[in-house]
Amino acid sequence: MRGAVLYGAGDVRFEERGNPRIVEPTDAILRLSATCVCGSDLWPYRGISPVSQPTPMGHEYCGIVEEVGSAVTSVKRGQFVIGSFFASDNTCPSCRIGYQSGCQHAEPVGGAQAPLLRVPLADGTLVATSGVPSDDLIPSLLALSDVMGTGWFAADAANVKPDSTVAVVGDGAVGLLGVLSAKQMGAERIIAMSRHASRQKLAREFGATDIVTERGDEGVARIKELTKGIGADAVLECVGTQEAMMQAIRSTRQGGYVGYVGVPHGVELKGEELFYAHVHLHGGPAPVRRYLPKLIDLVLSGKLNPGKVFDLTLPLDQVGEAYRAMDERRAIKALLRP
Amino acid sequence: MRGAVLYGAGDVRFEERGNPRIVEPTDAILRLSATCVCGSDLWPYRGISPVSQPTPMGHEYCGIVEEVGSAVTSVKRGQFVIGSFFASDNTCPSCRIGYQSGCQHAEPVGGAQAPLLRVPLADGTLVATSGVPSDDLIPSLLALSDVMGTGWFAADAANVKPDSTVAVVGDGAVGLLGVLSAKQMGAERIIAMSRHASRQKLAREFGATDIVTERGDEGVARIKELTKGIGADAVLECVGTQEAMMQAIRSTRQGGYVGYVGVPHGVELKGEELFYAHVHLHGGPAPVRRYLPKLIDLVLSGKLNPGKVFDLTLPLDQVGEAYRAMDERRAIKALLRP
Repeated sequence: MRGAVLYGAGDVRFEERGNPRIVEPTDAILRLSATCVCGSDLWPYRGISPVSQPTPMGHEYCGIVEEVGSAVTSVKRGQFVIGSFFASDNTCPSCRIGYQSGCQHAEPVGGAQAPLLRVPLADGTLVATSGVPSDDLIPSLLALSDVMGTGWFAADAANVKPDSTVAVVGDGAVGLLGVLSAKQMGAERIIAMSRHASRQKLAREFGATDIVTERGDEGVARIKELTKGIGADAVLECVGTQEAMMQAIRSTRQGGYVGYVGVPHGVELKGEELFYAHVHLHGGPAPVRRYLPKLIDLVLSGKLNPGKVFDLTLPLDQVGEAYRAMDERRAIKALLRP
Repeated sequence: MRGAVLYGAGDVRFEERGNPRIVEPTDAILRLSATCVCGSDLWPYRGISPVSQPTPMGHEYCGIVEEVGSAVTSVKRGQFVIGSFFASDNTCPSCRIGYQSGCQHAEPVGGAQAPLLRVPLADGTLVATSGVPSDDLIPSLLALSDVMGTGWFAADAANVKPDSTVAVVGDGAVGLLGVLSAKQMGAERIIAMSRHASRQKLAREFGATDIVTERGDEGVARIKELTKGIGADAVLECVGTQEAMMQAIRSTRQGGYVGYVGVPHGVELKGEELFYAHVHLHGGPAPVRRYLPKLIDLVLSGKLNPGKVFDLTLPLDQVGEAYRAMDERRAIKALLRP
């Protein structure tokens, strides 16, 4: 089969990789219905994270089980499944408490920008739907594999409640789905921080009540203005830079909550500022597996449509264009059809 | 009157300071029943925090109202009162949500190592008992002014619950009262980190079930050993150094909680480590005022005896010896009688 391989900054190739096969008896092989490019794929694509060797790309996926290892019992050939970008056994103490992305046996899933994918720890990682869903639901189900679960975790970590005032830092796909999550959780007011018209539009569609275009100190001042001078109850940090993290912390009221899911790049928090900010801080790689059953139900029942973040759909062999479009911010998120 | 003034590292003097007087109509003047030396007083005494000018010392207090300003309505002359080390109006949005130490009009209380003390924002800051308590309760009531409320906040911020496994980093008075707080909140297991026999003894008396003498990476490894390899549910950071903070974060299980109350000195948190640790982080200057009514009830009803942390009692004019004894760790905490 052919799949996406990153060779270095700006150099993603669609090339022969050899079919994946069962390595461990707990593995499954999926034939993917759809896959996509993640905002986090752009860090190495932009040369910000180093690429030490040619790397098969992609970690978001859903599709039909093609083959399972001898130890797999909970999913079987022919089922439609969705899994997290972190494989987890779903039985260790970290998993049992709902932190499957911190599973004691966690393995990253890789190489999903391809027609076939090997998923380790299939029993713990994959969740099957009853029956094969209709094609129009595929984008929303695919989104549950990472980006929607990550936005949901940001809102959950930020303790969003029905009466909350929420601010979202970052207008990428995760930030936009953070807005959708906050709306789903009943937030009263949702302030999206964005300066791009198409993203502002989608943020409004997902439930944003206010848009703030300023960033940094000016962005913080705007949030304060909109919240009687005290800051938001809950702030979702969906970028991963120092500026975004400080913008999130400083936009939060005393005793409020910051949920951070942007993979940190060079972020350092000064103990003293954090101390006097009096915020709650929680985040990390989203435990997507915890949320999958609930989010699948919401999608299948038509209550949640995160697939709207895919504003570009391409055949898999045009994966290079998918990266370029996202890098240049021409697309929010690109879906790829094998 | 004479009171304690810090001139520089190791140089605390008991000298004439002039009686405090009402400055704002919202002030009260108290005649103190007792005061004490705080662990945080040792930072400038040890020369770690700079002392730019002679500074009246002390911020823990309880006593009898001697005089009130014209705008004070909730306390009156002759009442016994306790207040926080931060004066707060108790009406601003931060106060109303329970973060009085982040009050929009917060003022630090200073110069309490003296017979008389001016307390700003008396209505918001002071809580009166019904009647004047008996002398044997004074140490425990004094402790509520800072050290007990701070230990309580550490446990509260660390989300201690009846079935929690708790670890406490720091065996100063705050750490020991963190142990007492965790016990009072019903924690199942409480691991105190201490290498001093007298402090270990008091930790046990306060409810510690285990003692860990190791520090740093070895301390973390010991906590992991005692918790099936996963770490504690709740960890209280009661020191304020980089080592203590990292020890706390690394001793916490995935999804667990760190409550930090040690005033940070040079602490810097790497975003990446925090991200993958998956802990909840909350802390800061304790909103003692929030807890005062409840903690006063617990002391007056004999259910809480935090006064045990005072293992040295001296007349106020021996304040220099109080600092020396705490600096040399001969005393856990010194109570001073004016």
